[in-house]
Amino acid sequence: MNVTVRGRSRPFRTVTFDTARNAARLIDQRLLPHTFRIVSLDDFGQTAQAIRDMVVRGAGAIGATAAYGLAQGARAFRGRGLGRLWSHVESVYQTLKAARPTAVDPVSAMDQVRAAMQAGKTVEEQQALAIAAAEEFANEDVRHCREIGRHGAKLIGQGMNVLTHCNAGWLAFVDVGSATAPLYAAQAQGRAFHVYCDETRPRSQGSTLTAWELAQQQIPHQIIADNAAGHLMQRGQIDLVIVGSDRTLGRTGEVANKIGTYAKAVLARRHGLPFYVAIPLSTIDWNLKSGFDIPIEQRHESEVLGAWGVVESPRSLAGSRKRTGRRVYVRVGNPGSGALNPGFDVTPPELITGIITPVGIFQPADLWANRRQLGHPA
Amino acid sequence: MNVTVRGRSRPFRTVTFDTARNAARLIDQRLLPHTFRIVSLDDFGQTAQAIRDMVVRGAGAIGATAAYGLAQGARAFRGRGLGRLWSHVESVYQTLKAARPTAVDPVSAMDQVRAAMQAGKTVEEQQALAIAAAEEFANEDVRHCREIGRHGAKLIGQGMNVLTHCNAGWLAFVDVGSATAPLYAAQAQGRAFHVYCDETRPRSQGSTLTAWELAQQQIPHQIIADNAAGHLMQRGQIDLVIVGSDRTLGRTGEVANKIGTYAKAVLARRHGLPFYVAIPLSTIDWNLKSGFDIPIEQRHESEVLGAWGVVESPRSLAGSRKRTGRRVYVRVGNPGSGALNPGFDVTPPELITGIITPVGIFQPADLWANRRQLGHPA
Repeated sequence: MNVTVRGRSRPFRTVTFDTARNAARLIDQRLLPHTFRIVSLDDFGQTAQAIRDMVVRGAGAIGATAAYGLAQGARAFRGRGLGRLWSHVESVYQTLKAARPTAVDPVSAMDQVRAAMQAGKTVEEQQALAIAAAEEFANEDVRHCREIGRHGAKLIGQGMNVLTHCNAGWLAFVDVGSATAPLYAAQAQGRAFHVYCDETRPRSQGSTLTAWELAQQQIPHQIIADNAAGHLMQRGQIDLVIVGSDRTLGRTGEVANKIGTYAKAVLARRHGLPFYVAIPLSTIDWNLKSGFDIPIEQRHESEVLGAWGVVESPRSLAGSRKRTGRRVYVRVGNPGSGALNPGFDVTPPELITGIITPVGIFQPADLWANRRQLGHPA
Repeated sequence: MNVTVRGRSRPFRTVTFDTARNAARLIDQRLLPHTFRIVSLDDFGQTAQAIRDMVVRGAGAIGATAAYGLAQGARAFRGRGLGRLWSHVESVYQTLKAARPTAVDPVSAMDQVRAAMQAGKTVEEQQALAIAAAEEFANEDVRHCREIGRHGAKLIGQGMNVLTHCNAGWLAFVDVGSATAPLYAAQAQGRAFHVYCDETRPRSQGSTLTAWELAQQQIPHQIIADNAAGHLMQRGQIDLVIVGSDRTLGRTGEVANKIGTYAKAVLARRHGLPFYVAIPLSTIDWNLKSGFDIPIEQRHESEVLGAWGVVESPRSLAGSRKRTGRRVYVRVGNPGSGALNPGFDVTPPELITGIITPVGIFQPADLWANRRQLGHPA
């Protein structure tokens, strides 16, 4: 999507690869929204470190980064013989896998690259196939997001107010995003609408990443406290809710997503508002039989007890578009009080109007019946 | 309630008066939870300024502060003649009223003090009656909160997990509080329980003031993100919700309270959990016929776009009980993005299990029928 740098709007992907320099290039998401910076990672060790350090986050984005990282490592091999190449590739694979051990996307992305390499008969051929496969993984991620946008755009009518939660935007993918894809597609079709970004405490991905994305794309939006959506629904100020998902159960239609998603679904149901979840097929879990079996990550209490930001005078905010500044952590909550910090919650299928996928919109209860179309491995 | 100062737990009220020095004494709530400091206000002008500067906030607390301020001003009168006293008192009244022009409690508190003064036949008698009436207003506020506690304590069983939102605690009153009163009463009766404090963005009164209060009273508690309550209810980790109210409609049973209260009521209903509102009688509005007529204050966007706290290393949080530090404002959200910041929402009566008042617990639909007992002026 587009980013305005020094007054000029230019297209960027979250993750790209410079084949001439054999370098992965990432938007440093730790610095957003205050600073926009591209980091260049010159070897696979640096690429693994960037995944570990959360320079990049989001299922599609870390998948593509790992795919590029594996190709980068394979291309750096200067020895002879496929045997030696493959033992080198195995160590690259393990290094990248260990950078985010609980994520599934890097592993499946790297598996695709490794599988593609096997068609090559020489080291050079396999190296060329590796980078081609990584590029194909990234391009496919973008195509799938665009398909989510194509299917979802029809839900967004002229003048609507859309609520979103957390960041399932292009920064979480290679480009376009999942929950944001229908917004960008509807904008491209010429429709005007307004987005409310839930702040999404405790990590504030809505007020930082999603608001930044929408501002870059010049989509009218406002940040709201997570507490405000119920009131806005009561007053008729929200027409539609779209969120992403970290894991959707193919057998039950339950959706795990950022903490607070469930409350928005309950409120939407009370007010008769449509509640959609936009997902790439890779996030469908075909194994688990109940949402209660989804492990809910308990995160560090410091996230709830404080916030990260740039020191500023609150009075200078209006109209200020300063971008730079060192982020600091401030403790907000009572010293000596602890916090409980579940990172995700599970929304049951009866609260979900539809699940927007690259292959169409489905009722949550119909995922299993359409499992072949939705990429079930069997 | 008790505050631990230099290792010793001592009783404090939010607002007191030093008759010998004719000074109002307030806990400076702007510095909490990081610094505990009592400020002494030596004339009514300083007292009005403290109300204006939010040194003190909360209906009961600012009512008592204004009552003390009026008595303080009357006692400072050094002239002769009741006529001159009353024109002086009128200017004190207007100064204190202008300090928080939309609040009703300071006005009704000062009206009580003025009415009591009229029984005096000399300047000295009226001055004595003024301070006696202000003390009586403060003591009555405490008695009413204790009665809320007496009625509400029976709802809190051994081992329960109680959710509260914002701060309707003793810092919002002269002592004891409204939503917290049942907690303190149940603790005094020897029952052990646990409280989840909603952070209550954007001003974080839950993680700052309520958590501080509960820590001082040694009630086990944890701060949670406003997004987390739905998940905890799903997993059976919340048994009861108690909140306060800024305005309760006597004709309809609708409750206006801090933004986010409504969402908690909707979630509680979905999970079959009791949802109680604790109020002093002064917050019942007998005039309005619909919650949609309650004006919802739109507050400054800086509250949503950032946070106030003390700069710290997030890793040093665990076990840290440091109290001091300069609070700074950090901008969290995207520079250039705006925010919408409604301060309150309205919860309909069908979501409210009961309204805990100083004279008993009522169904919201029964307020009007019991209006005489509940202090309806007619």
